[in-house]
Amino acid sequence: MAGGVGERFWPSSRRLRPKQLLDLTGRGSMLRLTIERIGDLARPDEIFVYTNREQRDAVLAEVRGLLPEANVIGEPEMRNTAPCIGLAAVVAERMHGSQAMLVLPADHLVEPVSRFRELVRSGEKFVSAHRALLTFGIVPTRPETGYGYVRPGAELWHDAGVVVLRAEAFLEKPAPERARELVREGCCWNSGMFLWRTDTLLDGLKRHQPELHAVLERIAAALGTRSLDEVLNEEYRGAPAVSIDYGLMEKADNVAVMRADFTWNDVGSWEFIRDVEAADADGNVLVGEHVMIDASGNTVVSRDRLVGLIGVENIVVVDAGDAILVCRRDRAQDVRKIVAELKRRGRNDLV
Amino acid sequence: MAGGVGERFWPSSRRLRPKQLLDLTGRGSMLRLTIERIGDLARPDEIFVYTNREQRDAVLAEVRGLLPEANVIGEPEMRNTAPCIGLAAVVAERMHGSQAMLVLPADHLVEPVSRFRELVRSGEKFVSAHRALLTFGIVPTRPETGYGYVRPGAELWHDAGVVVLRAEAFLEKPAPERARELVREGCCWNSGMFLWRTDTLLDGLKRHQPELHAVLERIAAALGTRSLDEVLNEEYRGAPAVSIDYGLMEKADNVAVMRADFTWNDVGSWEFIRDVEAADADGNVLVGEHVMIDASGNTVVSRDRLVGLIGVENIVVVDAGDAILVCRRDRAQDVRKIVAELKRRGRNDLV
Repeated sequence: MAGGVGERFWPSSRRLRPKQLLDLTGRGSMLRLTIERIGDLARPDEIFVYTNREQRDAVLAEVRGLLPEANVIGEPEMRNTAPCIGLAAVVAERMHGSQAMLVLPADHLVEPVSRFRELVRSGEKFVSAHRALLTFGIVPTRPETGYGYVRPGAELWHDAGVVVLRAEAFLEKPAPERARELVREGCCWNSGMFLWRTDTLLDGLKRHQPELHAVLERIAAALGTRSLDEVLNEEYRGAPAVSIDYGLMEKADNVAVMRADFTWNDVGSWEFIRDVEAADADGNVLVGEHVMIDASGNTVVSRDRLVGLIGVENIVVVDAGDAILVCRRDRAQDVRKIVAELKRRGRNDLV
Repeated sequence: MAGGVGERFWPSSRRLRPKQLLDLTGRGSMLRLTIERIGDLARPDEIFVYTNREQRDAVLAEVRGLLPEANVIGEPEMRNTAPCIGLAAVVAERMHGSQAMLVLPADHLVEPVSRFRELVRSGEKFVSAHRALLTFGIVPTRPETGYGYVRPGAELWHDAGVVVLRAEAFLEKPAPERARELVREGCCWNSGMFLWRTDTLLDGLKRHQPELHAVLERIAAALGTRSLDEVLNEEYRGAPAVSIDYGLMEKADNVAVMRADFTWNDVGSWEFIRDVEAADADGNVLVGEHVMIDASGNTVVSRDRLVGLIGVENIVVVDAGDAILVCRRDRAQDVRKIVAELKRRGRNDLV
């Protein structure tokens, strides 16, 4: 899934240069890292990228050589994750028959890749045997308030070093005290990465999202016909815009969670970079050339320009060539407010 | 006087793009504004610009059309203000005979220009009649700790709305409590702008800086000869590097101060801009396009790039294309520390 903009990564992210196409780590774009992470779990023709039509050309340019051009699907309209994932399931069934399907947001960071692949291979065995909807639950390393949580229940299955449990409940982003409780109780972060058989997913949607399922059946009937574009345009725009978490995972009774012990980051704001880059002795995380005078706890991302800081603490500075962000670190979520203001002003070149 | 670099204006100021050549107000370079301020007080051929040899080409380019090229003098070496002013006096005497001489640093802002010219015309009458060394003392608008002060004594002379008093003492930059006392006692800011007859100045130097005076006499003897460059090179480098304040004004007994009631700013750091640009309702002074979210008391100078601020207070942000400064406002004097660090690293392109 490579739609969306990532407005919290302004000034680097833009409508036609969305977060998943940015090289935020110096190791390649989020999307490229995500495809490379799949490695030998799937053949190139089994990998599909879903994006929106406006961004499709930019996505195509980024994935050239990694998978067939026809596997980059431009959604007619952004309708949240359930329609996107449902469409992916009917397309995959049409091309490869019913089989296991891994759903990955294109803007997460996962390390080490080898462990990720081990867990996916185990999960594939599990979902094939149990016909369950599996979510990857990350073993928390801190009482993070920026993530949702999954509460695990009874053990359903285990493989060498891998445990799958019943998912008892999905919990919204907690307050700090509640987050500490959830970690103590063994809850996991809800990663938004899923694994299931396509037929299990479509059965679940038929039961819990019948309206969406009907849309998907009409699209499926048009696949391979000349009316596909027209049907897709019309039907997809009419699909209920619901998330897969709310629309299916919180409702179904065959939901399982795998305790995933790889390092995971959802790259939700500029703060993410403090998880992946080392800080200096004063707690500054610095990407690019810089001079620090009595500056501590800052995050600076500026690949092309030198940044000098004097006497400031706990701020984020990002240079994107045509715009500069200076933000208190604990306000990193509010970066989207700048994007909203620029839209209001009609500054489409900067959003 | 247009030597120096103005390191506190990094990242905008550089060795070959010094403060006096910057357009810090959007109305022209400091040097151009200074020359334009002279207006009909002097003919173009009576105006001389003293700079250092390294910066002479850049200065020439800036003043083209305003005064003769030969009137831009490149000092062989920076030797503080007394040698520079002494050299200016012997050059002026040689070309125009003994007459009144106005000394202006090229990096001050003065408003309104009409009042400035009135006071200079009055001062010219005074120094011609009294053979005194006149300094312009600015009537303080606040107990500023960043300026030196002059203590006025008995009235020596007055003209319509203009008073000249004996200068009793020159006082160093005071502590805050002392600054309040000085303002209460009627002391003035020492502007560093002077007016005297060239012969009065040279008499003063002969008495209080005999070594410098001897150097100037040897240079004067070479003016108009083919050996000038050689003599200037050798003699000027050997002149005592002393300021005109310390070397003459604090020692002479014919020093007077004119109470100058124009608005004056010595443009000493990025804080200056808060004196010349209006602040928004949140106390932000903003030059260039910007988006402010819960930001107050900040100073932002970015002519070519949009700057977005979120949740930050009392910082200075300056973009200069190839480098960016983010500095606590009360640390604006420490900007030169960045320049020192860049020199240490050999980053000559950025200093």
